[in-house]
Amino acid sequence: MDYQSMFTFMLEMAGTIAFAASGAMVGAQRGMDIFGVCVLGVVTAVGGGATRDIILGIVPPGMFQDPLYTIVATVTSCIVFAVMYWKQELLEGGNRLVYDKVMLVMDTVGLGVFTVMGVDKGISQGYMGRTFFLVFLGTVTGVGGGLIRDMMAGVPPYIFVRHIYACASIVGAIACVWIYRLWGGVPAMVIGTVVVILIRYLAAHYRWNLPRLRRE
Amino acid sequence: MDYQSMFTFMLEMAGTIAFAASGAMVGAQRGMDIFGVCVLGVVTAVGGGATRDIILGIVPPGMFQDPLYTIVATVTSCIVFAVMYWKQELLEGGNRLVYDKVMLVMDTVGLGVFTVMGVDKGISQGYMGRTFFLVFLGTVTGVGGGLIRDMMAGVPPYIFVRHIYACASIVGAIACVWIYRLWGGVPAMVIGTVVVILIRYLAAHYRWNLPRLRRE
Amino acid sequence: MDYQSMFTFMLEMAGTIAFAASGAMVGAQRGMDIFGVCVLGVVTAVGGGATRDIILGIVPPGMFQDPLYTIVATVTSCIVFAVMYWKQELLEGGNRLVYDKVMLVMDTVGLGVFTVMGVDKGISQGYMGRTFFLVFLGTVTGVGGGLIRDMMAGVPPYIFVRHIYACASIVGAIACVWIYRLWGGVPAMVIGTVVVILIRYLAAHYRWNLPRLRRE
Repeated sequence: MDYQSMFTFMLEMAGTIAFAASGAMVGAQRGMDIFGVCVLGVVTAVGGGATRDIILGIVPPGMFQDPLYTIVATVTSCIVFAVMYWKQELLEGGNRLVYDKVMLVMDTVGLGVFTVMGVDKGISQGYMGRTFFLVFLGTVTGVGGGLIRDMMAGVPPYIFVRHIYACASIVGAIACVWIYRLWGGVPAMVIGTVVVILIRYLAAHYRWNLPRLRRE
Repeated sequence: MDYQSMFTFMLEMAGTIAFAASGAMVGAQRGMDIFGVCVLGVVTAVGGGATRDIILGIVPPGMFQDPLYTIVATVTSCIVFAVMYWKQELLEGGNRLVYDKVMLVMDTVGLGVFTVMGVDKGISQGYMGRTFFLVFLGTVTGVGGGLIRDMMAGVPPYIFVRHIYACASIVGAIACVWIYRLWGGVPAMVIGTVVVILIRYLAAHYRWNLPRLRRE
Repeated sequence: MDYQSMFTFMLEMAGTIAFAASGAMVGAQRGMDIFGVCVLGVVTAVGGGATRDIILGIVPPGMFQDPLYTIVATVTSCIVFAVMYWKQELLEGGNRLVYDKVMLVMDTVGLGVFTVMGVDKGISQGYMGRTFFLVFLGTVTGVGGGLIRDMMAGVPPYIFVRHIYACASIVGAIACVWIYRLWGGVPAMVIGTVVVILIRYLAAHYRWNLPRLRRE
């Protein structure tokens, strides 16, 4: 494994862990048992990629070609559950703030990496010319897992109500597609990831939100 | 483009706009931001057809072959959001009644057109002999988008609780399949659409509802 | 039809009826009309298998090759609805206990049969070597219908909150995969089914539950 794939792999792992942890926390807070918590963690981590593969006609989806991501997501979910079960105080007070910051960074990295991975997968299947389709694939890979998580948990989908989450993914995917055509894969994936992370970070820091109706 | 395809195209556009508007309104009322509103609008408009294509093994689904429908649905959703955001009074009082009537007509046309399109797609894939499968494809194309919309928005699926909505689609699909075999495609699509519109209109006008349990 | 397929067929029918009845009851209790009740019954009965087929790339899914299961599920749902509509007293008092017992037995048989059917389908598609994928296919076939039912009805997914339901399916699927490799298909399917039934029965009897967070 060369430097570049090693780097990609580590980013993917960070994203998988962060997504799995976010799914596991939603499940635990909704009173699910440890099985439900693990399913929600796994679905959040690999659901976006699996949806993309079904749309692309790649069957069985990639998550079954290489179970490593599912295993990592399951272990992460179990750890999150164990901590919340026995050591809830670890997630309170000052620790909570540290935890939230770490999760935000990882989740943001995951969003960026998964988005460009989705675009890359579409290009490798021969859809280089289809800008709209590629951007959709990138966004589904990035935000699809979180959407399925929220539908399963019966909570209002996070990506529809909070911050510039999905928009970061869309803008990053567009950047990735265009740079891919101009300069090739490596700069496209690096810059696409950076764009997603930058927008997401700025949105979280300055509390940017998209407009919505005031509910009476 | 000949007269017939022009006519079909205009009906499809009416259906797409009506479905997108219904999705956008549900999203806006649930407090989603403009991105969520657009996703709900697009999903309602193209979700049924995409589900049908995945079941038929058409990958990538048709919505990615021709992004026009997605673009129309996105623009419609943005307009609905803008009106509800800045000009909510436009949707109140007497205007509201006019709006509801226009939406009902368009939604009904969309339901009819999408249903026969679904049957037609199944026949064009070589399933002429499979009545049950064709009726399913027609109904999924007609009501699938609304079902996904309601699952994403976390509201009880409209098609399960209100009026003779899905039944109109089923009866129209059955009519379409049988007439297709007897007289060919054009009469099948016209009569199928008319059957759906007629049942739906009568159901809305006379407030027909299917039986359900009284909830204590 | 030889003895063995006859036996399998009867188990499958028992599972289909039990799953359809559980879906129909959830729908009726949520105030859905008879159409919604039927859809929920059918989805619960055939949804797991259809999801499995889409993941395996079998299109159209098996439920459309042979509509018998859908028809049985529809008829079952209509009967359940009719009983709850006109004869609700039949489901109260002592009868209720008998009904619950019958449903538990049938649901448990269905879970076992559908789980090993899912594993068998995966093996017949050439994935004998993929333990993880086969177990996933078995579990999706067993519990997928109930999960889609709960997502459509907007209730917290049963499989995530109650008893050792999904775990029974997972353990049975693992047993089935390993015995298949050692002794072939028939013992694998019989023992796999028995394992699921045994765990599920013991879990229901002794009220085993997986750990979950106490909600304040």
